[in-house]
Amino acid sequence: MKIPKALESVIEGFERLPGIGPKSAQRLGFYLLHVPQSDLDDFAYALTNLKKNTKMCTICSNIGTTDICDVCDDQQRDRSLVCVVEDALDVLAFERSDKFKGVYHVLHGVIDPLNSIGPDDIFIPQLVSRLREKDSVISEIIVATNPTMEGEATAMYIVREVRNKNEDVKITRIGRGLPVGADIEYADEVTLGRALEGRSEY
Amino acid sequence: MKIPKALESVIEGFERLPGIGPKSAQRLGFYLLHVPQSDLDDFAYALTNLKKNTKMCTICSNIGTTDICDVCDDQQRDRSLVCVVEDALDVLAFERSDKFKGVYHVLHGVIDPLNSIGPDDIFIPQLVSRLREKDSVISEIIVATNPTMEGEATAMYIVREVRNKNEDVKITRIGRGLPVGADIEYADEVTLGRALEGRSEY
Repeated sequence: MKIPKALESVIEGFERLPGIGPKSAQRLGFYLLHVPQSDLDDFAYALTNLKKNTKMCTICSNIGTTDICDVCDDQQRDRSLVCVVEDALDVLAFERSDKFKGVYHVLHGVIDPLNSIGPDDIFIPQLVSRLREKDSVISEIIVATNPTMEGEATAMYIVREVRNKNEDVKITRIGRGLPVGADIEYADEVTLGRALEGRSEY
Repeated sequence: MKIPKALESVIEGFERLPGIGPKSAQRLGFYLLHVPQSDLDDFAYALTNLKKNTKMCTICSNIGTTDICDVCDDQQRDRSLVCVVEDALDVLAFERSDKFKGVYHVLHGVIDPLNSIGPDDIFIPQLVSRLREKDSVISEIIVATNPTMEGEATAMYIVREVRNKNEDVKITRIGRGLPVGADIEYADEVTLGRALEGRSEY
């Protein structure tokens, strides 16, 4: 028994998505056969219009509907503080925490030599030119890339790059240590090491 | 920060799929922002045409591209043996095993009173009329619904229904017991009970 071409195309579409394996893709494809045509049309319409109806902020490259994103447009935000994140989803996470009143810079990726992604393939040059602007008010850059191999390497690169270009700007890295609710007993050694290094005084 | 409407629609589309939670849906939505427009168009095209370019077999209600599916059309298959499955995906699984030479009947669901799915909402009436056809050659029905609560209930219903309509047909249930490679130590009691009941002689 061969899977019909039309179904195969949908399954292939799902398989290309991150975190969806061949089995799940097949399941989703067969599931959609039982969904009303109007739902399929709506989903298809949403997909084709996704990129047409979203814009990247010309300042911080965050995702929005206008040339300047909501955060950069907000006059209440502290423009001297820039939080550098890997992805627009990370902006959402920080905004949910409601603890950050500065602005962002979205890299849209990390330096990843294995997948041939260099510093110029992500939005690092844009960060540097933001710093070099004549009327720049940036006084601190918080590097908030993920604490992974690639995230740390990207952070190191940004630190070097920023130091080279502008000596007055303070550069910080988000705190690394035990997440709230964690158990020291089960923490891995690297995290524990970071938690010791990053200890704070009472 | 608000998520743009266009992105929100895509995320909602993913959220409606089984096994994809709000977090994964958000991730997939943001991921697609970095995908070429042509890929999005292809995926959208595949979705709208999914149901238009697939057909349900008029005999067994399996999924295919023609009115009669590949299996029903194959003259080599044993038409006296009908394997009743919940879903077209189950047909694929049996075909992969290469052990079944009969034909199928796809129910497209199970009896599930909690979700108000009754026997007539799935393809049970079609199975009964297949049996009652004058030129029917069916001699055995293998009930291969999943060994879940709903699957077992559906199996029971089918057995009663078939017995009522045609006394000559043999009805069997697929074997239940320990899957190959399993460990008796970790098997649950119900499975072990089934394995004992379904023991076979050397």
